Amino acid sequence: MKLFTLFVLITILWGCAQCSSNNPHPLDPPTRSEFKLIQTIVRRAYPSHSFTFQYVGLDEPDKTTILSWLSLTPQARIKNLPPRQFLVIARYQKQSLEIIVDLAAKSIIGTKVYEGHGYPMLTLDEQYLASELLLSYGAFKESVRKRGLNVSEVVCSTFSVGWFGEVKTPRSLKIKCYYTNGTANLYARPLEGISAVVDLDEMRIVDYTDRFIVAVPKAEGTEYRASKLKPPFGPKLNGIGVPQHAGPGFNVDGHTVSWANWAFHVGFDIRAGPIISLASVYDLEKQKYRQVLYRGFISELFVPYQDPTEDWYYQTYFDSGEYGFGQSASSLQPFTDCPANAVFLDAYYASADGSPVKIHNAFCIFERHSVDIMWRHTEIAIPNEVITEVRSDVSLVVRFVSTVGNYDYVIDWEFKPSGSIKLGVGLTGILEVKAGKYTNTDQIKEDIYGTLLADNTIGIYHDHFLTYYLDLDIDGEDNSFVKTNLETVRVKDHTTPRKSYWAVVSETAKTEADARIKFGVKPADLLVVNPNRKTKPGNKIGYRLIPNSVVHPLLVNDDYPQVRAAFTNYNVWVTPYNKSEKWAAGSCVDRSRGDDTLGVWSLRDREIENKDIVLWYTLGFHHVPSQEDFPVMPTLSGGFELRPTNFFENNPVLKVKSPKPVHWPNCTSQS
Amino acid sequence: MKLFTLFVLITILWGCAQCSSNNPHPLDPPTRSEFKLIQTIVRRAYPSHSFTFQYVGLDEPDKTTILSWLSLTPQARIKNLPPRQFLVIARYQKQSLEIIVDLAAKSIIGTKVYEGHGYPMLTLDEQYLASELLLSYGAFKESVRKRGLNVSEVVCSTFSVGWFGEVKTPRSLKIKCYYTNGTANLYARPLEGISAVVDLDEMRIVDYTDRFIVAVPKAEGTEYRASKLKPPFGPKLNGIGVPQHAGPGFNVDGHTVSWANWAFHVGFDIRAGPIISLASVYDLEKQKYRQVLYRGFISELFVPYQDPTEDWYYQTYFDSGEYGFGQSASSLQPFTDCPANAVFLDAYYASADGSPVKIHNAFCIFERHSVDIMWRHTEIAIPNEVITEVRSDVSLVVRFVSTVGNYDYVIDWEFKPSGSIKLGVGLTGILEVKAGKYTNTDQIKEDIYGTLLADNTIGIYHDHFLTYYLDLDIDGEDNSFVKTNLETVRVKDHTTPRKSYWAVVSETAKTEADARIKFGVKPADLLVVNPNRKTKPGNKIGYRLIPNSVVHPLLVNDDYPQVRAAFTNYNVWVTPYNKSEKWAAGSCVDRSRGDDTLGVWSLRDREIENKDIVLWYTLGFHHVPSQEDFPVMPTLSGGFELRPTNFFENNPVLKVKSPKPVHWPNCTSQS
Repeated sequence: MKLFTLFVLITILWGCAQCSSNNPHPLDPPTRSEFKLIQTIVRRAYPSHSFTFQYVGLDEPDKTTILSWLSLTPQARIKNLPPRQFLVIARYQKQSLEIIVDLAAKSIIGTKVYEGHGYPMLTLDEQYLASELLLSYGAFKESVRKRGLNVSEVVCSTFSVGWFGEVKTPRSLKIKCYYTNGTANLYARPLEGISAVVDLDEMRIVDYTDRFIVAVPKAEGTEYRASKLKPPFGPKLNGIGVPQHAGPGFNVDGHTVSWANWAFHVGFDIRAGPIISLASVYDLEKQKYRQVLYRGFISELFVPYQDPTEDWYYQTYFDSGEYGFGQSASSLQPFTDCPANAVFLDAYYASADGSPVKIHNAFCIFERHSVDIMWRHTEIAIPNEVITEVRSDVSLVVRFVSTVGNYDYVIDWEFKPSGSIKLGVGLTGILEVKAGKYTNTDQIKEDIYGTLLADNTIGIYHDHFLTYYLDLDIDGEDNSFVKTNLETVRVKDHTTPRKSYWAVVSETAKTEADARIKFGVKPADLLVVNPNRKTKPGNKIGYRLIPNSVVHPLLVNDDYPQVRAAFTNYNVWVTPYNKSEKWAAGSCVDRSRGDDTLGVWSLRDREIENKDIVLWYTLGFHHVPSQEDFPVMPTLSGGFELRPTNFFENNPVLKVKSPKPVHWPNCTSQS
Repeated sequence: MKLFTLFVLITILWGCAQCSSNNPHPLDPPTRSEFKLIQTIVRRAYPSHSFTFQYVGLDEPDKTTILSWLSLTPQARIKNLPPRQFLVIARYQKQSLEIIVDLAAKSIIGTKVYEGHGYPMLTLDEQYLASELLLSYGAFKESVRKRGLNVSEVVCSTFSVGWFGEVKTPRSLKIKCYYTNGTANLYARPLEGISAVVDLDEMRIVDYTDRFIVAVPKAEGTEYRASKLKPPFGPKLNGIGVPQHAGPGFNVDGHTVSWANWAFHVGFDIRAGPIISLASVYDLEKQKYRQVLYRGFISELFVPYQDPTEDWYYQTYFDSGEYGFGQSASSLQPFTDCPANAVFLDAYYASADGSPVKIHNAFCIFERHSVDIMWRHTEIAIPNEVITEVRSDVSLVVRFVSTVGNYDYVIDWEFKPSGSIKLGVGLTGILEVKAGKYTNTDQIKEDIYGTLLADNTIGIYHDHFLTYYLDLDIDGEDNSFVKTNLETVRVKDHTTPRKSYWAVVSETAKTEADARIKFGVKPADLLVVNPNRKTKPGNKIGYRLIPNSVVHPLLVNDDYPQVRAAFTNYNVWVTPYNKSEKWAAGSCVDRSRGDDTLGVWSLRDREIENKDIVLWYTLGFHHVPSQEDFPVMPTLSGGFELRPTNFFENNPVLKVKSPKPVHWPNCTSQS
């Protein structure tokens, strides 16, 4: 602990803005030059053009290695950076290879053929190639002609096919096409009735059918580009400036961020997207930084659509494991995605041929002046005196946006001076719609599995489940998971005029089975505590999970998509830390069969008391589309809070002073 | 509808900042001069000094009167303001009187003796008088002396006593006292073991016992005033300016606020606090304002503590009906409670003698630049083109803070350009604690009904339930309540490779019994719709309730406090509009017996389909205190959203332009 503290303090004092090369951290994602070196090393062994890089990421050092590195002096740390090793998952000769590359040794130090079910993440390149195939496919061109459309205005997109009990599961994608004439909103104009399957290893169409024709919904009313929309515009919103005479209040040093009482590392992975590591909070009373979160990221996103018909049943996406939540990052726009006081970070990933690709402005980091109240009290009970003490809240946000095809996910990690971490999710972007013959609900006599949004346009029902991996290390690695159940006590002995009250019955989970929680069944506070450390009054030091919605999957447990997404069956799971258990849906998710999920690992029912444990939390949304979601949807928000609970001896922001108002008296404004 | 639209448009065009007298509205709360006139009229009839004004508020005109007034021209409206009538609830000769005063007639037009159970709201004056009684009471002075304390540093406070099955329920309050030596945080230093009861009508102590002595917890560590705290301070937060070269983007005209696409009226009531009326949203496509909410306010707050012992069992407060959520308003502090760009409104209420009391800065109204994203999409599927369209969110907030003794409630009504209304609740302030002999949890062998927060200091478990009255009038008065249940369909006929999907089964509530909802049992979208109006595709026009927590009472249904708070037994109730059904806990709540609650009215099981209906929504918090909540608690937030759902034909913010960044190039800054 102490050495960890030392590390963070030194890191903070060690200022050097955004120059990761001068201040490397063992959890840093691969740099541009590292990607090149990995490419060179691997290409040397596999010169064939048919060899593709499906995933390249940090093979993160063991936790013990990281912790002992952190215990070194800064000088020693530079010299003793743990070996930079990377995991390359590749497709080669119809096999999935797991290759470990060591950069110091400049060589491959391990190669394994993946023998399990499922395939690695899809590359953007192969998806692009697959989506282009149809455009020069004779039967498709005929289908387009038959519909009276122009093939030059057709755009196709690729869709993972899932697994529905098939014995053989070739690596393939389905293709759906859209019409772009008159709009940039291609998702609004699907060519319904056509299905096509591409074999990815052979990169050719293996199945094509054109079963029926439905008119493509009209372009009118689908546009969302301001430059193409016609007046009237509105409602009018006016802007504010965000002047900070002293500049931003946070420091970004390589990938390490420090602000107010927080310090943490921001990583990036092509599959996970943002990874927050080593988050620790400064305790003013103890005068040291204290560990909270060793590593946290979104392990999987499961998005099942609810239309069981031919062209839709398979749409049960795993946005991380199949598409890469990091690979799908959108470059953030200054002043709209992020405020004027934001700082941006780029990210890199490897394309199919192994070359580094830069994502400009993949992250932004900013202080949020949300105009919330941190704490307050007005006291009028004391004679001749009115006391009013108010502290306004400021927080630090790390924002990332991933656009997986039609949907945009806004992911916020928000750090609060009170010690809370708020995890925010915003859903926006464009609905997947189905073309139909209907223009009015009056005409509908069957189940259309969605909402009629406009003429011939059905927004299909679906869910979003986000599963967070949260390796909380509360004041050290050995932690326990405690349910503090709130239970009604009925008074029977007439010792009080009350007939009832509620009591807190704490229960420490011994094994994984004790820690599977479905919200809404029983009121409980859920805590990760350090049973080896107590506060002065003797309370267990901990952090509490505060959900803000209760959503459970509605598919039956034995349905194929749900078997693959069994990790969503509970809102909360706790597992003992295991370096290999990172991906809730398993390592190879495309066409997976659900035999390598969190749901399966947890069946071992391992001991989790006073161990290094990982909390898995799933939040969800059932989405019944409404007309307001068309042609682009206003953000729907969700999230949860990790809140210190008897972690501090008392209110950690008691001695915060509200920021002074900033006045700009002599300004020539300009909007 | 059209006439309503006209009204709002005219109101907006009718600018006159904060001059309610020039632009009176029939829903305006009583003005200072109206209070004086009411006082004069009533005092003329009841000159006795023993006559007290317990409540004075607007006796709001009938809905039909309001709606027909709104249909007049502006000129005609000034001349035809409905009669200004007010309800005075008074105590006189040990009776509760309900007096209707008409200001035009300058007379009392109706008087009724309240014959039911319970008493009217407590006045601040009588609470103050009651709390002072003990300080000159011999036995109490002896009790203080016995504890080695100084009576000049004791402050007492009053607590409603509830009802626990007693046949006789005199109007009385319990008194608890605190020690202020060395701290302003009196709640942290209770004098445990002493109980006193004051008869309010006789204003004298009728019961006094000193049963045991527990040392008063120490003052150290309880202070929260910045001026009294010792360094180190921190963490340091830096401020921002909020320059708006064009000033705030909203207009306050009397009590009517207009901003972006919203217009509404902000009222105030000594019992309810803030009341939002006639909220309507401008539909860019239809080019008119459309009705959303006729009237919304917090009808009751129920705060039961969970310690059944002698001095605590009765602590089951009704913060509106007993204490007055409006009466408890705190004056808002510029720059901390509200941002630099806020506009403030004062409020008035009548004190016990009928004279107006001003609450300075009772409301603030401000544009919130929360740095959220209103909607966005990045499109990479179109060849040779990357589209990124992002709109940043801005909303308008009406904020009000009520400090009921120790607790501070931050109440936000937030209006979003997307048509959503977000209702926010922040809990902060000071915990009620009990003095105990313990300094460490190791010593505790019994149930202490709370958390040991510091030496001898127990934070007692409790709940907060807030019940909102929401008279939604979606595009007109006649509305229905629709549950769109999400139901799993198991596929049995092998028509699809899927084994299941979920379907939406809509159910329109016929009577009140159909509309009692306990969250967490069944997934459903809950809507208030206008069954008489449909969108172009034929969907019912509506607004959806999106909760963000699931909390239910844990007291047994037949426990006395829960009988009085039966309105919290469901998260949602729907009743037909009835002018007299405003207060979920009944009209006279102090010592009430639960025979006049929403729970009882709803037993009539009236028809609610295609009627003018009211939605009642209860959100709650179970509060297991933690050390972080001491000596003052960081805000714990909750809330819910009312979101348009097939109310608009499409995304109502599609044509919003993000505010332009405001630059301040030539500034001399000053912090």
